[in-house]
Amino acid sequence: MLALELHQFATVPEGVRGVEVPEPHQPGKGEILARLAYASINPAELLLVEGRYASRPELPVRLGIEGSAVVEAVGEDVESVRPGDLVMSLLRTNWTERLLLQQGQFVKLPEGFDARMAAMLKVNPATAQLMLSEFVNLQPGEWVLQNAANSAVGVLVIQLAKQRGLRTINLVRRSSLETELKALGADVVLTDSENLPEQVREIVGSGALRLALDAVAGPAVEQLAAGLDTGGTVLNYGLLSGQPCHISPNQLVFR
Amino acid sequence: MLALELHQFATVPEGVRGVEVPEPHQPGKGEILARLAYASINPAELLLVEGRYASRPELPVRLGIEGSAVVEAVGEDVESVRPGDLVMSLLRTNWTERLLLQQGQFVKLPEGFDARMAAMLKVNPATAQLMLSEFVNLQPGEWVLQNAANSAVGVLVIQLAKQRGLRTINLVRRSSLETELKALGADVVLTDSENLPEQVREIVGSGALRLALDAVAGPAVEQLAAGLDTGGTVLNYGLLSGQPCHISPNQLVFR
Repeated sequence: MLALELHQFATVPEGVRGVEVPEPHQPGKGEILARLAYASINPAELLLVEGRYASRPELPVRLGIEGSAVVEAVGEDVESVRPGDLVMSLLRTNWTERLLLQQGQFVKLPEGFDARMAAMLKVNPATAQLMLSEFVNLQPGEWVLQNAANSAVGVLVIQLAKQRGLRTINLVRRSSLETELKALGADVVLTDSENLPEQVREIVGSGALRLALDAVAGPAVEQLAAGLDTGGTVLNYGLLSGQPCHISPNQLVFR
Repeated sequence: MLALELHQFATVPEGVRGVEVPEPHQPGKGEILARLAYASINPAELLLVEGRYASRPELPVRLGIEGSAVVEAVGEDVESVRPGDLVMSLLRTNWTERLLLQQGQFVKLPEGFDARMAAMLKVNPATAQLMLSEFVNLQPGEWVLQNAANSAVGVLVIQLAKQRGLRTINLVRRSSLETELKALGADVVLTDSENLPEQVREIVGSGALRLALDAVAGPAVEQLAAGLDTGGTVLNYGLLSGQPCHISPNQLVFR
């Protein structure tokens, strides 16, 4: 069967090639065999291919941090899924035709779940969910500030925040995105501007703004920080600007 | 009596002038009257004078965040000090001849305590002490990394760390400082260099390095961060470089 592997750090697709690999064996005790349905191309994976990720693995290496698959056969002691069920794979080598998965390496999805959506479920929704729950103990009515609000993670943040009764201020570079983001539940959409911290403070008024989510790095971090309450948190999860995060000692020492 | 006040943001001494102000009244219930012994000129105060501090007060404003003073008279209900005792003032308006202090605005110092040292006791020693105790729960044997190690705060960090059984790696710009800092208790003194994070990791070996203290900001923050253990803390308390702190998303997301 075919699998995709990275054989040299390069721009996509040059560094990636298809290779013939052996078919997996039939599922043993606690294992399942599944046929790949969809696999995403996540930006983190592109960074890995280009050698710009935090770590550089030894090459060649198999790829694919996300994938959905349909169960073909189950081994002894597997009662959670049956052939025909849709699963999300937790492997990091999903860019291949068939997957052999052990217990704990897959999540069964409800009947009728869209297989394409299932292939985008592992990374971005978890990122958005954990950023809202693991760092600041937010209460309903509080505000969350984010940039790159129209990104895959950004639109998930908007929707998950709405479900929790949080209000969002969303920074984008094109005002034409406002309608789309508001339809998803965005409370406020702003285009980046000079006096952003003042605009943010005016919107928040006496409300609480203790969390800002940054996917851009560079000077954007300082802009977010300047709008936050004293003691607030800027959570960085991306580097769209390609620059290191900038933050002023004034924002660190005095707030 | 004479007091110094800031009448316009400017370089020192242009923005500061001496003004005649009324003598304080005799101490009432719970108050003491003290004659200024020494007052420091703290770098934070110079930033304030130049208008570069985090906040810009309305002018004119009285100055002097540190001062030591000798008690001249005590009011009713004051039993902690007597005339002749040395106190450290907690006011922020110490650049004046006499101080009227309420309970809680002064700390009595032991007999024989040097009055000049007393005027440098409020800001820097507390900064060094709190940085070692309030942010990371350090255990004896652990390492602390700091830059600007020959600063007033830096040499206090060295001495306080030594007392707690912590080991320090101290970054300076001149190797001639090594003897002096080692005499104070520094374990390692390094001059800034390209491969600093690797040097730091080699020194620490299997030991723990969870706290770095930064007085410089700019790219120096990233250099400190790269030497830390995963999950470590860089604590910024100064801006000697005049630049915002720089830190790479790789250091934030993956460590």
